[in-house]
Amino acid sequence: MNILYLMFDQLRFDYLSCAGHPTLHTPHIDSIAAKGVRFTNAYTQSPICGPSRMSAYTGRYPSSHGAQWNGYPLRVGEATLGDHLREAGMGCWLVGKTHMKADVQGMARLGIAPDSVVGKRQAECGFDVWCRDDGLWAVGPDGPYDSKPSPYNDHLASKGYAGANPWADFANAGREGDDIASGWFMRNAGKPAAVAEQDSETPWLTGEAIRFMEATEGPWCAHVSYIKPHWPYIAPAPYNDMYSVADILPPVRSESELQDAHPVYRAFTEGLVGRNFSRDEVREAVIPAYMGLIKQCDDQIGRLLRYLKDSGRDQDTMIVLTSDHGDYLGDHWMGEKDLFHAPSVKVPLIVYDPRASADATRGSTCDALVELIDVTATLIEAAGGEVPDHIVEGRSLMPYVEGRAHPNPRDYAISEYDYACHPVGTALDVPPRDARMVMVATRDWKLVHCEGGLPPMLFDLKNDPDELRDLGRSADHAGVRAEMYGHLHHWARRMSQRLTVSDAQIMARRSGGSSGVLLGVFDEADVPLEESAAYRGKAPE
Amino acid sequence: MNILYLMFDQLRFDYLSCAGHPTLHTPHIDSIAAKGVRFTNAYTQSPICGPSRMSAYTGRYPSSHGAQWNGYPLRVGEATLGDHLREAGMGCWLVGKTHMKADVQGMARLGIAPDSVVGKRQAECGFDVWCRDDGLWAVGPDGPYDSKPSPYNDHLASKGYAGANPWADFANAGREGDDIASGWFMRNAGKPAAVAEQDSETPWLTGEAIRFMEATEGPWCAHVSYIKPHWPYIAPAPYNDMYSVADILPPVRSESELQDAHPVYRAFTEGLVGRNFSRDEVREAVIPAYMGLIKQCDDQIGRLLRYLKDSGRDQDTMIVLTSDHGDYLGDHWMGEKDLFHAPSVKVPLIVYDPRASADATRGSTCDALVELIDVTATLIEAAGGEVPDHIVEGRSLMPYVEGRAHPNPRDYAISEYDYACHPVGTALDVPPRDARMVMVATRDWKLVHCEGGLPPMLFDLKNDPDELRDLGRSADHAGVRAEMYGHLHHWARRMSQRLTVSDAQIMARRSGGSSGVLLGVFDEADVPLEESAAYRGKAPE
Repeated sequence: MNILYLMFDQLRFDYLSCAGHPTLHTPHIDSIAAKGVRFTNAYTQSPICGPSRMSAYTGRYPSSHGAQWNGYPLRVGEATLGDHLREAGMGCWLVGKTHMKADVQGMARLGIAPDSVVGKRQAECGFDVWCRDDGLWAVGPDGPYDSKPSPYNDHLASKGYAGANPWADFANAGREGDDIASGWFMRNAGKPAAVAEQDSETPWLTGEAIRFMEATEGPWCAHVSYIKPHWPYIAPAPYNDMYSVADILPPVRSESELQDAHPVYRAFTEGLVGRNFSRDEVREAVIPAYMGLIKQCDDQIGRLLRYLKDSGRDQDTMIVLTSDHGDYLGDHWMGEKDLFHAPSVKVPLIVYDPRASADATRGSTCDALVELIDVTATLIEAAGGEVPDHIVEGRSLMPYVEGRAHPNPRDYAISEYDYACHPVGTALDVPPRDARMVMVATRDWKLVHCEGGLPPMLFDLKNDPDELRDLGRSADHAGVRAEMYGHLHHWARRMSQRLTVSDAQIMARRSGGSSGVLLGVFDEADVPLEESAAYRGKAPE
Repeated sequence: MNILYLMFDQLRFDYLSCAGHPTLHTPHIDSIAAKGVRFTNAYTQSPICGPSRMSAYTGRYPSSHGAQWNGYPLRVGEATLGDHLREAGMGCWLVGKTHMKADVQGMARLGIAPDSVVGKRQAECGFDVWCRDDGLWAVGPDGPYDSKPSPYNDHLASKGYAGANPWADFANAGREGDDIASGWFMRNAGKPAAVAEQDSETPWLTGEAIRFMEATEGPWCAHVSYIKPHWPYIAPAPYNDMYSVADILPPVRSESELQDAHPVYRAFTEGLVGRNFSRDEVREAVIPAYMGLIKQCDDQIGRLLRYLKDSGRDQDTMIVLTSDHGDYLGDHWMGEKDLFHAPSVKVPLIVYDPRASADATRGSTCDALVELIDVTATLIEAAGGEVPDHIVEGRSLMPYVEGRAHPNPRDYAISEYDYACHPVGTALDVPPRDARMVMVATRDWKLVHCEGGLPPMLFDLKNDPDELRDLGRSADHAGVRAEMYGHLHHWARRMSQRLTVSDAQIMARRSGGSSGVLLGVFDEADVPLEESAAYRGKAPE
């Protein structure tokens, strides 16, 4: 069996027709859900790309692997999905985006040559790279956001798109004569990208995925990791105007949210992103384009599924489809992600397992509390490996996929966010190590702990499913907060770094008896005769 | 300046005359205290060798570095004192014991050759090795406890001591004709070791330290790490009978401790070690020998100090003297260490800084709450380095040594113990990851949290300084427990793994402005004119 691990960047959990979106039809993704299990309560481990993905690729929480924000290198030696899958006899390949930053200093300290196999895998978060393109080729007044090479830009150049950065000048911009209608200006969101549809990012990456499958012997896991529907919100025709203002949903927000608002939440709403996404004209420009980008993604999934069917691989290819986090799109007076309301912190998650063992659950949904890191464990188990649960903190979803009782279901889900480098950290003047938040969510409640002496946020998910009333300082809810802090601290005390010794090794050591030293022996009465002789000894001949 | 970082294994904080022991005179160690600062409230990070030392050598808590018990390898890549000191331009050498177990699998995964400089340092916890001898050359019915080579055994062989393991047969045994009066039988504790005093472990290691100093160019830090007074409790003449029953202190214990005892504490008292150390004849055999071993250590410190003086190095050699944990010696119905009563969890800690900047504090004591990992930070600062406080969790003691107000004093001290591999874990049938305890101590209270749903222990250090009444389940102390749990959870939520990005780097990133991407821009009104032009762009020529 092979595995397609599909990830979309910034795809909201509820922007799929199988998840109930009324005007956005995603029949191809829906068809995967129809033959698999769709998880309706899946949480990302961080509502921002870098740490979310480092969690997905290690199966560990951001505070366990330490790459807590974009551009924080993943420490050298951290075990990855690739390490675990290769140990189980399966290759692990990258086709697309990871947001990985190599721990160049750590590698140098350990003498790991960047061009060795080990060095390349360390630098690429454990993947063997078919192609990597992180898809953010922005150049601003301070220079490039990302200085890596872009195979997608190379592809555009080979197709005749001119200039040093056709990603910015064509694929993520419209054109008005000689002027570039830059995707960085959201007012341009409705304009068609100045690129032929088949040359845009999503079809290009799909083509790379198909080329990979044609060329590569299994068993493999391919992380096909799409850049879209992440901003810039620019779609090629016909997707740019496939949706209109009539198709967008009203924002989930209330004026009351802004009254006596939590200081961190307030700071996010007061930034440029929050202010702009609170304007109707911004939502009306952006959301149809965002929907168009998703529609294009769905069509490309259709292309992938056709390839699998035509090549006969649909019966032996597992598919997992998810995203790294969502997009507020104006809900809660916010844009982007960064906080823990559902549009940001929940992710779509669909698992299709072609094996007969999963027949009982096809087309079902599962509302268990699950986490993005659970995918890591799931893939290891699907590959025939044993999940090293002293390293991987995720829990396999296979029991849910196979319709078995889960031996270790989650009582709560965790997500983390470090805003030390975010403008909000600067605005609030919070010291770097206090600029951290942890969300703990049960089925009924969601608490957001803020480090540094700030109050928590609290939402009653049962009676306020839209999360419009922050009860973090409500005198009536001290008991609930205490209970939620109980969960949070149970998690905070977790054992996350005993990486070199497994529970099984400990159990073996327990049953193996003494390792040569029997402590506290006073005289022969304390030890069995045989051991006593060994301890007493005779002078060597 | 050079640094002598002296460590004794299993030396109690109160078995020095400068610490108030009435019958054990340690004038040489006292003389270091007389010219330095003696810390009276120093806690080890784990009351057992391996994790305590891995904490000392990394400056990090056991749950941060993950080597939570003896024989758990320290994960490859974990930054060490050696890394930090070498970065500050100081060599870092080992003369003696570390209890380090190499992460052989992790090294292999990263392609690190064991015989390379990097590989050797990884395997030796960051030290360059002058000589390493962990001093536990036990061979029991299940084979050797430690399969490494022993330079001390080689030394004994070169002196004519016969057999494969003269450490066991001579240095840690008496002799009765052809029979070995094994040090493993504590009833033999009073017998003289079958080794000449100058050939015993402590003088041998002192000789190695002197040879090191004679041969090595500075600046260096030498970790001179003595094996004694750790068991086997066998001392060479004249130290074996230098003390008698009249010299030992009564045990600190009460029958009431055993009534309604906490299950973990009870299990420790009920093991062979606890049962035997509760017997007077065991204490009367062991403690005089233990005191003799300490007296020998003190005499050897005198020899070291004489060498420093004679070579003129006493004015430019900093000395730090401590131990990895204590020894119950029958207090609280316990032997060995493992739990958190003062005789086990407190360590002696003396810092002598020869520089004039420390003149104001010479001969003083400091009762601030400090931790063994603080030594790591202290040595980095003393070497002229900047403490990387996103990696090293210890806090430099230099403010105390120089008589300055500490900018960041501890409100509480932390110690951890993982008993998953200890017979108590087996006896209580606690799953491996629940077999963990965390102590949090303020000046007034000590709470021991036990994972896995067990109740905590609580001691009132002010009104019950001997820690004889466990208030962990006292209805009257719920408020104190809540307060102590507040400290413990503040610590549990600490940021311990953001190792690749420093606070200073974050602050620089904050002041550096945008990195090319300005988020949430709708139109030109949102950006300064210059940036607007950059974002809008012109078609490339």
